[in-house]
Amino acid sequence: MLSVHLENGRVDVRDEPRPGRPRGFALIRLLCGGICNTDLELQRGYYGFSGTPGHEFVGEVLEADSPEWIGRRVVGEINLACDACQWCRRGLGRHCPHRTVLGIVKHPGAFRECLTLPEQNLHAVPDSVPTERAIFTEPLAAACEILDQVPLPCGAQLAVLGDGKLGLLVAMALNAYGYRVHQFGRHENKLRIAQRAGVETEVARGNLPEMAYQWVVDATGSPEGFAQAVKLACPRGTIFLKSTLHGLVPVNTAPVIVNEITLIGSRCGRFEPALDLLTRNLIPVDEMISEQLPLADAPRAFERAAQKGIMKVLLGCGA
Amino acid sequence: MLSVHLENGRVDVRDEPRPGRPRGFALIRLLCGGICNTDLELQRGYYGFSGTPGHEFVGEVLEADSPEWIGRRVVGEINLACDACQWCRRGLGRHCPHRTVLGIVKHPGAFRECLTLPEQNLHAVPDSVPTERAIFTEPLAAACEILDQVPLPCGAQLAVLGDGKLGLLVAMALNAYGYRVHQFGRHENKLRIAQRAGVETEVARGNLPEMAYQWVVDATGSPEGFAQAVKLACPRGTIFLKSTLHGLVPVNTAPVIVNEITLIGSRCGRFEPALDLLTRNLIPVDEMISEQLPLADAPRAFERAAQKGIMKVLLGCGA
Repeated sequence: MLSVHLENGRVDVRDEPRPGRPRGFALIRLLCGGICNTDLELQRGYYGFSGTPGHEFVGEVLEADSPEWIGRRVVGEINLACDACQWCRRGLGRHCPHRTVLGIVKHPGAFRECLTLPEQNLHAVPDSVPTERAIFTEPLAAACEILDQVPLPCGAQLAVLGDGKLGLLVAMALNAYGYRVHQFGRHENKLRIAQRAGVETEVARGNLPEMAYQWVVDATGSPEGFAQAVKLACPRGTIFLKSTLHGLVPVNTAPVIVNEITLIGSRCGRFEPALDLLTRNLIPVDEMISEQLPLADAPRAFERAAQKGIMKVLLGCGA
Repeated sequence: MLSVHLENGRVDVRDEPRPGRPRGFALIRLLCGGICNTDLELQRGYYGFSGTPGHEFVGEVLEADSPEWIGRRVVGEINLACDACQWCRRGLGRHCPHRTVLGIVKHPGAFRECLTLPEQNLHAVPDSVPTERAIFTEPLAAACEILDQVPLPCGAQLAVLGDGKLGLLVAMALNAYGYRVHQFGRHENKLRIAQRAGVETEVARGNLPEMAYQWVVDATGSPEGFAQAVKLACPRGTIFLKSTLHGLVPVNTAPVIVNEITLIGSRCGRFEPALDLLTRNLIPVDEMISEQLPLADAPRAFERAAQKGIMKVLLGCGA
């Protein structure tokens, strides 16, 4: 079977034997994979990764212990947890210290014709949700994670900084849940997607308001964005950190302390709220798809995904 | 009257006229002043400060609009707020954007024979509390601020990093309120003060536990301390930032995001809980006094306060 291989920044497609299926796992045929910024970071060598990448996928279950899964179209949570530690017992397998992570940490990823994942990680995709929409479940779950971390007051006003894929999903998810969202970004064409979904958007040219928002989401992916978020937040305000920055980031901590700002790191989320939003078709994710390429064209797909202005690149969809 | 003057890093004592008393203000005779790390930072030029420093004081009211204040021994909150903005209306004058700050921002400080402060900033010191103990009200209020920011679970276990004055006050205040405190520091003699008060202390020589505490307080005043605090915190843990660091601090944000850690900037606090702890004599603050010098010896007092191993230096106490 075809399998994407990433090593030393090089993406190629290999022929590999179909993986064995351990007890408790499902064997899943890939229908569609989505290239995420994290995949591009793996390519840039940030985690010393080598192997099959890919953690955004929709697939069809070929084999499983529980017969009810067989033939189902599924998405899957990416953290493979031990199911025994205190984190797992609290329902926070995403923080299990023994976890492996699909296509990121010690578990081969989804960019191959067949993948394996524990049955307990699977979520059935409702028939009404097309595969090209369901592929956004994982990043949308990361966007919704904010709402699982802090109980926001009903109808609260939030500022979202950044108009990349995650920034758009965060803004549109918060908007769909009834919050008032002001999104600041640099790209009129990207912001327009959120705007059509009901988000108030603004092309940010330097002068953002200062101390203006109780709730701020930094999804810029840049140290400058983080500094802007600190300026945007009012005293006792909260900033959700949705950007993973690499290495040491120079941070001016003084305003954080003087204004008693709360910073909350935010990563993966539960799939349920994301699937709910996609089932109700409340997020126009299809407008975020830039390109669809067959799995065999993975090297070119990675190239395209890294280009400026390109949003989501899908692999093998509809294959 | 004698007044301490700080300019370009130089401390001297001048003779100045007694300040006028605006309506709503009290004229207060200084009984005792305490030199704080912030004063030393003003001396190092961090805020372009020039004028009379000093924000930790105990005084006796000489003149006031309300006759009941006259003759009372008082401490005073250091933020002079506008009393009209949304922050002030919410009882958060400490974040009033129009505020001046005693001895720090545009209001002459307490290191002079007579100072002025709005009556609404004053708190009477109970007769049972000696002046040398009451002088710790302001820094102890900053230590207690943590408990005003987040409702900690009853009996929660916290790690406090740092054994400077603020670290000790934080550890002892949390301990006095029934929390289980593990304090990590570098100085056996300083830690012993907290230990005698019931805090579990440990001289930290490198290897601190990792991902071990749900609640961590960073009071180290150093970027390395902040990095240690991030390591010490468990996933979804909370770190209170009690250290003011200057300039850009290199921060590794990746573990903050991956482990979804919450960072909370924390500054000044309400005086009530601090005065309560001091009145009940639950914090052995007298052990933290290194030296007492007359106001006229302020230059030498500042020198002493900046020396290694020296803790609290008092000015004019008992005068």
